[in-house]
Amino acid sequence: MTEGRVPGARLVGVARSSGYLYREEGLTRDEIAGEVRDSAAFVRGSSTSLIRERAFDVLVELTPTNLPSAEPGLSNIRSALENGIDVVTANKAPIALHYAELAELSRSTGSLLLFDATVGGGIPLITLRRLCTRGDDLLSIKGILNGTTNYILSRMQFEGLTFELALREAQNLGIAERDPSLDVNGYDTALKLLILANSLMGLNKGLSDVKVVGISKVTQEAVAAAKESNMSVKLIGSVDGEGRLSVGPRLVKANDPLCVHGMLNAVTFRFSIAGDLTLIGHGAGEPTIAALLNDLHQVVEHRLRARA
Amino acid sequence: MTEGRVPGARLVGVARSSGYLYREEGLTRDEIAGEVRDSAAFVRGSSTSLIRERAFDVLVELTPTNLPSAEPGLSNIRSALENGIDVVTANKAPIALHYAELAELSRSTGSLLLFDATVGGGIPLITLRRLCTRGDDLLSIKGILNGTTNYILSRMQFEGLTFELALREAQNLGIAERDPSLDVNGYDTALKLLILANSLMGLNKGLSDVKVVGISKVTQEAVAAAKESNMSVKLIGSVDGEGRLSVGPRLVKANDPLCVHGMLNAVTFRFSIAGDLTLIGHGAGEPTIAALLNDLHQVVEHRLRARA
Repeated sequence: MTEGRVPGARLVGVARSSGYLYREEGLTRDEIAGEVRDSAAFVRGSSTSLIRERAFDVLVELTPTNLPSAEPGLSNIRSALENGIDVVTANKAPIALHYAELAELSRSTGSLLLFDATVGGGIPLITLRRLCTRGDDLLSIKGILNGTTNYILSRMQFEGLTFELALREAQNLGIAERDPSLDVNGYDTALKLLILANSLMGLNKGLSDVKVVGISKVTQEAVAAAKESNMSVKLIGSVDGEGRLSVGPRLVKANDPLCVHGMLNAVTFRFSIAGDLTLIGHGAGEPTIAALLNDLHQVVEHRLRARA
Repeated sequence: MTEGRVPGARLVGVARSSGYLYREEGLTRDEIAGEVRDSAAFVRGSSTSLIRERAFDVLVELTPTNLPSAEPGLSNIRSALENGIDVVTANKAPIALHYAELAELSRSTGSLLLFDATVGGGIPLITLRRLCTRGDDLLSIKGILNGTTNYILSRMQFEGLTFELALREAQNLGIAERDPSLDVNGYDTALKLLILANSLMGLNKGLSDVKVVGISKVTQEAVAAAKESNMSVKLIGSVDGEGRLSVGPRLVKANDPLCVHGMLNAVTFRFSIAGDLTLIGHGAGEPTIAALLNDLHQVVEHRLRARA
C-alpha cells in the first residue's frame, strides 16, 4: 500500500470483517488492487489471531467508529498494544472514549499509539502540538471539526437555503451520510474535541462532560442576521482554560481566521508564548491518508532507532 | 534563559558585539536579568573564540539580518557547524542566502542546523513540513510572510488611509522600523520565501531568482476597488510547481484562508495528498521565542539520543 511513501515499511496483510490476506514476505500491488476477498489467498474468518500471533509490527486500524461500544476498534487496539504491536488509527471512538486506558497501555508496553488521522483529516493537529510547539503551553483549543455541518451552514449563509434543504443537498452530493445524525447533532465534533482535549491538554474527560448542541435548530433567519453583522454561524467545539468542553453553534467574526467555509476544517490553538495559531485544511476523505502516512513514518523511524 | 522550558539545557554564555558572559557551570537567572555588560564577569572583546574552543554545545544565533553580507551570522554559524556545535537561529540572511552551503556543512559534520524562527515567527512552518507531513509531496507554497506590510495594507483597506499615512502610523506604533525599506520593498518577504523554497522544496535559488515588487505603489483606489469586489490586496510570496519564486501585491479573495489582516502572517502549503493546508499566526516578536524553544528541544533530544 504505502511501500513507496513509507521507506522501510512492507504491507504484509489486509483484513476485512469477513476474512483476510496475509503473507509475511509482503503483498504485491496487484493483489490489493481489486477486492481482497476475490483473491485466491483470501482466508475466511477472523483476523484477530494474527494480532495475538504477532504476525506483524504495525496495525493500521481503520474499522468504523461505533458508539457507544467503540468496537471492534477498541479490542483490536488493546490487543495490538498488549502484544508489542504499534498502532496507527483513524478510528475516533476508541481514542475519544478510552484515551487514558490506551495511553497508559502504550506507555507500559512501549508500543506506539498514533492517531493524528482521527481529527482534522489532513491537518496534523496532534503531531503539530507534540513535535512543533515544545516548550510552549497550550492554553485552549477551539475549532470547526466537522466538514459536513460546515458545508450545510455555508450553504445556508451563501445561498439562503433552509437547514433541511442544505442537508438534503449535502446528502445528494454524498457529503452527508444517509443517517447524518452524528454530524448534525454535534457528536462527531464532540468525539474529536475529546481526543484533542485528553491527548493534548492532559485532561481525562468523557462524552458526558461535553455540553453538546447540534445545528438542526439553526434557522435561516439566524444565519442571515449573522451575515448582516459580518459574522457567520459555525459549529464550534472548544476546550477553555478551565478544562470545560462544549460543542454548539457560535457566532464567528468574518475576519476571524477560524471563519472558513464549505467542507474546510479550522482549529485555533492558543499558546502561552506563540499566541493564537490557526490551522485550516481538509478534514476528511483522501487527505486523511496523509495523516496515516506521517504516523507510519514515525513508527518506522522509532523502530529503526530502537534496533540501532 | 530556557532551563525551565527546555529540560536538559543549561545556559552557559551570552554574547554581545562588545563582549560576553561565560561560565561552564551555567549562568544564573540574576546574572542575565539586567544588561550583561554591567555584570562583573563581563569579558570585553570578541566571543568567537568560544566557538573555536567548543566551549558550548548549542549556538543560539540571534545577530541581526545584514544584507548582502549576512555577517556576522554567517561566520558564526559556519564556525559552529565546523566545530561540532549545533545551531538554532532566527537570523534570516545566512539561511536565505547560503542554505545549500550550510546544509551541506551540517550534513558533513553531523551538527544540527535549525531555523524555524527565521520564517513566520511563532508558526512552525519548517518543523511542520519536516515532521508532520512525511509521505506527502509539497507542490507549492504561498503566503503573507511580513506582518508590517500586512498591517499597512489592512489599514489602507479598513480605514481608507493612503500608503504614506498607514506607513507613518505603523512607524509611530513601532510596528514599522525607522527605515522600513526591507519590509516595504518586499525583500524581507523574498528572504523568507527563499528559506522555505530552498529548505522545503529542494531548490537552490538566490535573491536574484526572485521577482520582487513592493507595496509602496499600491494606491488607496486599488485597495478600495478590491474591497468592493470582496477581495483584498496582500503582499504575497509564492513558489509555484515549476520552482518560480515571486513576491508582489496580489488580489486575494475574502474567503481564501490566506486573507488575514493586521499583523498576522499566513502560509498555504499545497500537498499532493493532503491538499491545501494553511497556517495562520503571529509572524514576529515574542512568538518567535516559541520557535527557538522548539528547535532547542529538538537539539537536546538529538544529543540525548546520540549519547544513549
